[in-house]
Amino acid sequence: MAPVKLAHYLFTRLRQLGVESVHGVPGDFNLTMLDHVEPAGLNWVGNANELNAAYAADGYSRIKGLGAIVTTFGVGELSAINAIAGAYAEFAPVVHIVGIPARQIQEERIRVHHTLNDGEFKRFSQMHAQVTVAQTRLWDPLTSADQVDNILIQCLLHCRPVYLELPVDMVDAFVSGDRLQTPIVIPEPQPTHNLDDVILKIISKIEAAKRPVIYMDGESRPLRIVEEVQQFVSITKWPTIASPFGKGLLDETDPNFIGVYQGKFGAKAVHDFVTETDLALCFGPHYSGTNTYMWNSIPQSKETIEFTISGVKIGPEFYRDVSPKLVLSRLLKKLNMSKITAYRSTPDLPRYELLAPSSIPADDIIKQDKVWKVLGNLIQPGDIVMGETGTPGFGVREMPMQKHCRVFSHVTWLSIGYMLPAAQGAALAQKELIAASKWHNINAAKTILFIGDGSFQMTVQEMSTMIKHNLDVVIVLINNDGYSIERFIHGRKQGYNDVARWRYLEAPSFFGAPKDTYTASAKTWSELSTILERYKAEDTKGLSMFEVIMEREDAPVGQLQKVLEMQIERELKN
Amino acid sequence: MAPVKLAHYLFTRLRQLGVESVHGVPGDFNLTMLDHVEPAGLNWVGNANELNAAYAADGYSRIKGLGAIVTTFGVGELSAINAIAGAYAEFAPVVHIVGIPARQIQEERIRVHHTLNDGEFKRFSQMHAQVTVAQTRLWDPLTSADQVDNILIQCLLHCRPVYLELPVDMVDAFVSGDRLQTPIVIPEPQPTHNLDDVILKIISKIEAAKRPVIYMDGESRPLRIVEEVQQFVSITKWPTIASPFGKGLLDETDPNFIGVYQGKFGAKAVHDFVTETDLALCFGPHYSGTNTYMWNSIPQSKETIEFTISGVKIGPEFYRDVSPKLVLSRLLKKLNMSKITAYRSTPDLPRYELLAPSSIPADDIIKQDKVWKVLGNLIQPGDIVMGETGTPGFGVREMPMQKHCRVFSHVTWLSIGYMLPAAQGAALAQKELIAASKWHNINAAKTILFIGDGSFQMTVQEMSTMIKHNLDVVIVLINNDGYSIERFIHGRKQGYNDVARWRYLEAPSFFGAPKDTYTASAKTWSELSTILERYKAEDTKGLSMFEVIMEREDAPVGQLQKVLEMQIERELKN
Repeated sequence: MAPVKLAHYLFTRLRQLGVESVHGVPGDFNLTMLDHVEPAGLNWVGNANELNAAYAADGYSRIKGLGAIVTTFGVGELSAINAIAGAYAEFAPVVHIVGIPARQIQEERIRVHHTLNDGEFKRFSQMHAQVTVAQTRLWDPLTSADQVDNILIQCLLHCRPVYLELPVDMVDAFVSGDRLQTPIVIPEPQPTHNLDDVILKIISKIEAAKRPVIYMDGESRPLRIVEEVQQFVSITKWPTIASPFGKGLLDETDPNFIGVYQGKFGAKAVHDFVTETDLALCFGPHYSGTNTYMWNSIPQSKETIEFTISGVKIGPEFYRDVSPKLVLSRLLKKLNMSKITAYRSTPDLPRYELLAPSSIPADDIIKQDKVWKVLGNLIQPGDIVMGETGTPGFGVREMPMQKHCRVFSHVTWLSIGYMLPAAQGAALAQKELIAASKWHNINAAKTILFIGDGSFQMTVQEMSTMIKHNLDVVIVLINNDGYSIERFIHGRKQGYNDVARWRYLEAPSFFGAPKDTYTASAKTWSELSTILERYKAEDTKGLSMFEVIMEREDAPVGQLQKVLEMQIERELKN
Repeated sequence: MAPVKLAHYLFTRLRQLGVESVHGVPGDFNLTMLDHVEPAGLNWVGNANELNAAYAADGYSRIKGLGAIVTTFGVGELSAINAIAGAYAEFAPVVHIVGIPARQIQEERIRVHHTLNDGEFKRFSQMHAQVTVAQTRLWDPLTSADQVDNILIQCLLHCRPVYLELPVDMVDAFVSGDRLQTPIVIPEPQPTHNLDDVILKIISKIEAAKRPVIYMDGESRPLRIVEEVQQFVSITKWPTIASPFGKGLLDETDPNFIGVYQGKFGAKAVHDFVTETDLALCFGPHYSGTNTYMWNSIPQSKETIEFTISGVKIGPEFYRDVSPKLVLSRLLKKLNMSKITAYRSTPDLPRYELLAPSSIPADDIIKQDKVWKVLGNLIQPGDIVMGETGTPGFGVREMPMQKHCRVFSHVTWLSIGYMLPAAQGAALAQKELIAASKWHNINAAKTILFIGDGSFQMTVQEMSTMIKHNLDVVIVLINNDGYSIERFIHGRKQGYNDVARWRYLEAPSFFGAPKDTYTASAKTWSELSTILERYKAEDTKGLSMFEVIMEREDAPVGQLQKVLEMQIERELKN
């Protein structure tokens, strides 16, 4: 095969790995690179700004397994960097490709634009080294193709962002085309000397357990063990709880799926049950305060086995580098169900439930305590459900999911403004998968975004990208006149928690949607009921939006968590 | 005086230094700090997102001499960091105050939110160290007040951003209240051993000059020599040219002010004149490619004296640490005008001029080559005129300014999206100065923002902050269907230079402006004429907006510069 240009090589590699769309913003150091996007079979998204582009690439990558964003040197890449950090914190495999000045300009320290006018060109890569799992600068045609392959492997393997710099004068450098015939492969986990030993120990704990529980957390996704865990859950029928990060990864229609465990802040019966278990299998644990209700929802069972990104932990013993994937796949083959004496059916615990709006007095104003169980009626199998940090993030945790749904809610990074562009990315990924018949054969699936007014204002312009690419997104705006979650933490009546008052429902028109785009507003349960009926009755293709107006100091129960957090912070103060 | 709380101390210091409004976004690690904003006599702006807040603080600081932004740990501060880098590149004295987790949380490496979930708390300050002139973390009540004073001095002295971390549990720490009685003073420049020598050398060059020229560049502002240069220009009546960065600092109604010098890309007569000068006095030189028409507008006189932020340069001799301010103030006293034999009147050169729209066929469509000279009719004395990076940035350079105008155009950082939030900050600063009768006794002054559609989309939501604070801003949207400037560089017909098509004039309504807010659209010269007449006839208070529709591949002459830049880059490639 003839040599190919480096930019072509890079984009072809991305295409081979399942990327179909590249997010980003053009800039003068990446323009020639962009010429290679479409010829490599990729679609250029063209976002409104770089932060949004990176958020979108994050959302896309969590659905498709890999995402990419192209920015320009300095101004573009730094605008995106908050989102890149979030992708690191919450395991989104995003390739950040930055078009940088030509090598000679850098070597001669020429004072070009997008610099601090000091001849320094490495500041921004050093900044990215703080928030990416690997970095590479393509400086030599002889090593560049290998560098590309290597960094893509790291991105996929660690499921975290990587940073790649492509100088303007390297875009057209020739590299081996033959390499493209050999697919990129993520290294398979290898057995360690103690693997069999670890498996035996786990089996003996499983067989000894009388009252076990399964805890599904979000690092199961980067561990690539979601299917194995689902299989384990299906075989054992053990009661299963999830963390916020783990929600939406398992089949929630399974009768032994209980819901998001909230420790002492959730239902007492669930908390009592978990506390009395004798074994907890924790898959992909991610123990940030916000993912664990201030460390209250980490199962306090008699014994615990953790399957983590660094290895397997049995009680206090940590077996580094023992692969949870390898352990689980072998375990599933070895399990002897006759020896598992634990209960075969879920104990009688309160479960997720939907609420029909008709069950509430029609003229009452809408309240946080019930609204999420009502809004849950929007969800259909295969939908992607996104709850922005703040009240919606707590809200979606209360919603039962249909089959093949995916859920995004706040976990650790908690950057408000994330969810709207991420919805663009996720919806685009979903659309591509539907087109390829890879979305569980559900063609009507959509993306539903629940978002507060304060968050909406942060990154609102990405609605135009949803419109431009004709994505199927329902935006549910929770209009409660400001940063309610912050009010709850501190400053209930303070002006700094107010936000400007927009005419929110004019958004689709302003951003260029067809003039007949559906919008609606609900203040009472009957108004909300009418809206929900419309979604049941009509095709939900394309963009639509409705706002739910609530009182500013009304907040869901889950926010008690935050109060506690505040208390802990206060305690630490003194 | 009784001890005061640290946050109160900090905000009081800012107030003493002339800051009246603090930009930013609330977040859970800065909420208690924000309680101290209003009690210290400051106004809380409350921006839509942190990048915009930092851009706005930059715009504010360039007008008022100091600006401040408050963000929260991780997510907030990283969203702002691109703007902080821009403030560094282009000398905006912005104090970036970040609310960070309590000290004990950090010391115990607790996995709180807004982290990478790894117990590391210093990543983001290390990133800021790349783009700020000083950094400080307030960790000990005994040294904190001093740290605050010191970092504010560095911010003012260097006219560049600084970074200050305030842990949640330090907000209420007590520090000396007595210190607040002693004002913060920027260190006065001190004479060096060679100061008199340098002054004598400069005087002899000035006296020997037959055909001198004055080159006004933007680092004159951080050097605090703008008034001295104006005085020098007024006394000598020497022909004066400006860089884009220097434009708007001197009185452009002065007959010896020629305009922005564009080297070989501008008027031939001006270029010939500058090339034939025998002495160039260059004040505050900032020689980035984009501020110098690819280094073509650096005066190539027989002799050159540069007054820089590092010292004074006479020909090849560099006198480090010799203060341009000290040199200039002494020079002004010593100048013997009778010995200055150079011409006393400006040579006959083409000058800035306005163009009446009535002078162009009324039904012709609007073109870039004339539109800026027509739009210049909007400008009144005391206005702030902002031309976003791209075609508007070139456009405003062609406009003659009235007295006491200030100009923002692209210089070095060139982050598109900057100018709209910066207009919010600048307009707020202008409004405060008008209220304090410190804006040249011009109460009707306004801020005019010229902006392209691609840039507008980046940071559009900050229009709502203009509305919320009732700022006097005219937004002139150049609607030419995409990133025209990028088309001109590369990809003239490429899809990646398109942007989504919005209904731009719906913006004021969407963002909450009164329903009768003035908006208009012009495609022909007669339509534009009608709009300009309206601005002449009516009060221009509050927000208004009009769009000028132009063809997508029409671009101003100054963009030839970019073509050259592209060529240079191409040359470096091979």
